[in-house]
Amino acid sequence: MNEIRLAHGGGGRYSHQLIEEVFLPVLKNDYLDSRDDSALIDVPSTRLAFTTDSFVVEPLFFPGGDIGRLAVCGTVNDLAMLGAKPAYLSIGFIIEEGFLIDDLKRIVQSVKEAADEAGVLIVTGDTKVVQRGNVDGLFINTSGVGILRENVTLSGAGAQAGDHVVVSGPLGCHGMAVMTSREDLGFRTKIQSDVTPLNGLVDAMLGVTNHIHVMRDATRGGLATILNEIAGQSHVGIEIVEENVPLTEEVKGACELLGFDPLYVANEGVLVACISPGVVKDVVKAMKRISCGRNSAVIGSVLSENKNRVVMRTQIGSHRILDMLSGEQLPRIC
Amino acid sequence: MNEIRLAHGGGGRYSHQLIEEVFLPVLKNDYLDSRDDSALIDVPSTRLAFTTDSFVVEPLFFPGGDIGRLAVCGTVNDLAMLGAKPAYLSIGFIIEEGFLIDDLKRIVQSVKEAADEAGVLIVTGDTKVVQRGNVDGLFINTSGVGILRENVTLSGAGAQAGDHVVVSGPLGCHGMAVMTSREDLGFRTKIQSDVTPLNGLVDAMLGVTNHIHVMRDATRGGLATILNEIAGQSHVGIEIVEENVPLTEEVKGACELLGFDPLYVANEGVLVACISPGVVKDVVKAMKRISCGRNSAVIGSVLSENKNRVVMRTQIGSHRILDMLSGEQLPRIC
Repeated sequence: MNEIRLAHGGGGRYSHQLIEEVFLPVLKNDYLDSRDDSALIDVPSTRLAFTTDSFVVEPLFFPGGDIGRLAVCGTVNDLAMLGAKPAYLSIGFIIEEGFLIDDLKRIVQSVKEAADEAGVLIVTGDTKVVQRGNVDGLFINTSGVGILRENVTLSGAGAQAGDHVVVSGPLGCHGMAVMTSREDLGFRTKIQSDVTPLNGLVDAMLGVTNHIHVMRDATRGGLATILNEIAGQSHVGIEIVEENVPLTEEVKGACELLGFDPLYVANEGVLVACISPGVVKDVVKAMKRISCGRNSAVIGSVLSENKNRVVMRTQIGSHRILDMLSGEQLPRIC
Repeated sequence: MNEIRLAHGGGGRYSHQLIEEVFLPVLKNDYLDSRDDSALIDVPSTRLAFTTDSFVVEPLFFPGGDIGRLAVCGTVNDLAMLGAKPAYLSIGFIIEEGFLIDDLKRIVQSVKEAADEAGVLIVTGDTKVVQRGNVDGLFINTSGVGILRENVTLSGAGAQAGDHVVVSGPLGCHGMAVMTSREDLGFRTKIQSDVTPLNGLVDAMLGVTNHIHVMRDATRGGLATILNEIAGQSHVGIEIVEENVPLTEEVKGACELLGFDPLYVANEGVLVACISPGVVKDVVKAMKRISCGRNSAVIGSVLSENKNRVVMRTQIGSHRILDMLSGEQLPRIC
């Protein structure tokens, strides 16, 4: 068994072999062991978060991660952003006939490692195989169930005038890592994707206070698009200060060369939060103690004027309207 | 907006337009309206079923259904087979650039109708768009959460010697409907897919008794593969009687012409159950009152001998071993 064959998706003997030899040795737990159509899960609460995300990133392996790590972190982070504790994940693979089993094994290993890092269990899964040329390599869907905390209400609609806007790290690393590993650019970068589970960071933040109003991870469309969503859902204005936005020199340089705006480039390990001014200092201090939050920074504030708009005060003192991403900046970035 | 563009998957303005103009008008509910990264769901119990399934059926529209109906029913049925009441579904679309918006709207409409029929809510979703040629049309993943009934334990491992084996309807309709709509066969059939939510049928069965040990829907790999899974998980033998297996003349004829064995052809609206002999009559009577169960039949029994094996007594009185599907009979059937 070197390559995926159509029969690996047929539901019969080869499907079982794939499960026994590739998936279960790595992902094994009591839930998957039951081999039933659904996993039976116990939850300690009757309020849950539920989310889904498909991953079509190209290339499948990129500096700092791969589609397996991405698929786990993406769904973990969507749950964490509502203040839920991510608990159970499903995983669905759509694989092209001829895909290398060794590559699949690497991806499954990454899934396992990311799940362990985030403290979640993969409890149910599915595999489909399609003919050569009908899908480009491998796509993954993960869905997840998280346990909601009591007394925490986070929503894109929760931003309040006066809140400070915080980001948890430098922007654009994921998008530029994928992009520069894809193109034959004639130059090399050291940019690594930031793909990481953010639930530990969220735990630290909510350990300080419940007065966090919004958390969103700045994925597709980047910081600017997510801020526009928050402004629109909350009916507020948002102003950010350019010089406070954390960027690495590598990302800044690559974006300039390639003509991208880092504010619109996808991140997979950066969250944006709107936090009451009275507690923001303590929250940022707690964030900086967590590895993925060590470069956290206050970048702006929520305003009662300029509703539904996001504005950036530039380094030369002018104001630039940051619109929502219009058009596709980077296809298949996640 | 006639065709899907890459920008519809970018997370920015066009993604929002697609959500506002195509998805929300049809699927609208309070959960989707929140527009957050996850849906917040309330469940009346702390024991849940959780499942996932991806759908890559080709063609997308086939006699008796389409990929949208299939994607809802497939996940609803996986939840129902463990005795859970399907409640919340996620839906993830992966769409090829250039896909017709009108076709997408038809599919979303089917999703809505099937969800209403099954009594489930679509509470969260995701859309990715990939370049022309990198995916064949449209794939869907659905994941689902169901509420477990108290005092009901259904599992593939639950079959007991003496149980009767029941199927809920004629076999092979889905697979042959898709197959004969795909190939230029030179003959026509009236075969319609059986794709339907089975949770109403399950309600009726469990309304009679809790003494149902196994339920499985006979999807990929067909009846023979599912019976092998049950025999293996439960460490029992299973014998079925050929003349009792319900088949339509159309499916029988098409299978003969095309060289398929209907026992291995996928169904999307047929369940197999192992039921205590004392209650099986009453259960079958209740099944026949439900439209999708009107042709329910006892087709065999669970044995303590011949462990892990499935045998069919043929019409001429011989015994044929029904092995698990080996190889791919029909790619992209679901």
